[in-house]
Amino acid sequence: MLRVNLSAFFCIFAHINSCILEISFIGAGNLATNLAHALYHAGHHILQVYSRTQHSAEVLAEAVEAEPLTDLGLMTDNADVYIFSVTDRVLEELIKELAETVKGKVFLHTAGSIPMRVFEPYAERFGVLYPMQTFSKTTLVDFADIPCFIEASDSATFAVISNLAGTVSRQIYEMDSDRRRYLHLAAVFACNFTNHCYAIAEEMLRCHQIPFEVMLPLIDRTAQKIHELSPQESQTGPAVRFDTNVMDKHLQLLDDQMTRSIYELMSEDIHRYATSNSNSRVESEENIK
Amino acid sequence: MLRVNLSAFFCIFAHINSCILEISFIGAGNLATNLAHALYHAGHHILQVYSRTQHSAEVLAEAVEAEPLTDLGLMTDNADVYIFSVTDRVLEELIKELAETVKGKVFLHTAGSIPMRVFEPYAERFGVLYPMQTFSKTTLVDFADIPCFIEASDSATFAVISNLAGTVSRQIYEMDSDRRRYLHLAAVFACNFTNHCYAIAEEMLRCHQIPFEVMLPLIDRTAQKIHELSPQESQTGPAVRFDTNVMDKHLQLLDDQMTRSIYELMSEDIHRYATSNSNSRVESEENIK
Repeated sequence: MLRVNLSAFFCIFAHINSCILEISFIGAGNLATNLAHALYHAGHHILQVYSRTQHSAEVLAEAVEAEPLTDLGLMTDNADVYIFSVTDRVLEELIKELAETVKGKVFLHTAGSIPMRVFEPYAERFGVLYPMQTFSKTTLVDFADIPCFIEASDSATFAVISNLAGTVSRQIYEMDSDRRRYLHLAAVFACNFTNHCYAIAEEMLRCHQIPFEVMLPLIDRTAQKIHELSPQESQTGPAVRFDTNVMDKHLQLLDDQMTRSIYELMSEDIHRYATSNSNSRVESEENIK
Repeated sequence: MLRVNLSAFFCIFAHINSCILEISFIGAGNLATNLAHALYHAGHHILQVYSRTQHSAEVLAEAVEAEPLTDLGLMTDNADVYIFSVTDRVLEELIKELAETVKGKVFLHTAGSIPMRVFEPYAERFGVLYPMQTFSKTTLVDFADIPCFIEASDSATFAVISNLAGTVSRQIYEMDSDRRRYLHLAAVFACNFTNHCYAIAEEMLRCHQIPFEVMLPLIDRTAQKIHELSPQESQTGPAVRFDTNVMDKHLQLLDDQMTRSIYELMSEDIHRYATSNSNSRVESEENIK
């Protein structure tokens, strides 16, 4: 078992001292939509929602009784907290633009991969609220069990953010920008790459007129199993047994070069994990700067 | 949506006409253990359990009130059905050995990747019962919702196998050996490779003293989401947006060359899936022989 004891990890249960806040959103994408709904239903007031496109701004604003904006210059300075939930590459530019008119308020972003210091040149009170989940606009998720990772520029701002997060989630953790980068990277493997494995399976089944639905019990059990065993203990299949007979037969079925490369690389790495002791991998990964 | 309508697919609900069968197992691994338990609890009689190792044979045999064997020559010809559930590379050799003493009975194997014709030189009545699931000896799963893929040498044997499978599972599908190979390959992606993505994430978190448990809500939701949307519609993250800014930052965090290669290859393929229409991928995969 490679697990780190949860008790050694700082988890804040911040349901105490929460108060109603006035919040404006910069962004109306998947994450913004889910977070705005959760905050709205927790009793906070969403004042304005900015989005590049009129339709996105209107859809979210209407749902949370806010004013839609497509011009950031029209955002008022009435809110307590401004939540930036936009594509990483436009974040800094939008912070800079809003900071010209809004002073002394709490600025937050929700991105796993961007350090908190992105705010430093522009704002005084700022922080991060990273809810680690995969969101879509069409299905709103219950925020209660979504781990939220927070940090702030100062202790007063930290209190605001942790209280705000605590009104929607039961799992609030303090985490600095440096460790959050690795968390975000791990989430890409556990979510996006996992989902791509599902996508490849679906494509393969579709080409052979087999409905993807037959795969769901296996997918569900694979996710459920790691609640009981570590992923390494859970592993089954030809690669962990290094059953070259089966693996060679699989490769013969794969004409698509990319899919073939993924099969070879994943199988090799499964075998590496199964045969190396965990210490040797730690050594190689501790070289990470 | 790429889904094929389930109604176009042959599903047999075979709870009718089931009768109690006498069954012997060749193999006592993860799958054999789960299947033997399920058949035993469905009322069938497990007569003998053969395993290479005395301990494995005894543990399973005791649990299902059977006789443990480590010498296949001691297997009697009293059973109706002989279920071979062993590593692929020893399967044929064990079939050959048993066929010398046991004649005219139903021989089955449970492997996704091995064609039914492996039995042809040795037996008259034979077939396949492939339960598509990831099993471990320590946690017995409920067979009811496990899709079981069956085929048989003749219609009478098919009736025996479908009735047998129908006593433990509600999802019985007829599938020939050729299509089953692709199903098995797809299962490797959806289960083993998915689980390896979890393992990489766990390793990454462990190196940064972050408990793996924080990842479970994301993993659960990723699996749950594809009950509502296709995997391609579900995809989120930097690769599907082709956010090279985030991807480059991730690559800088990865010193381990294998993990880095997996990151690059998976990201590239996610982008390919997102940008190509599905038809072009079908064409390339239809070249599969």
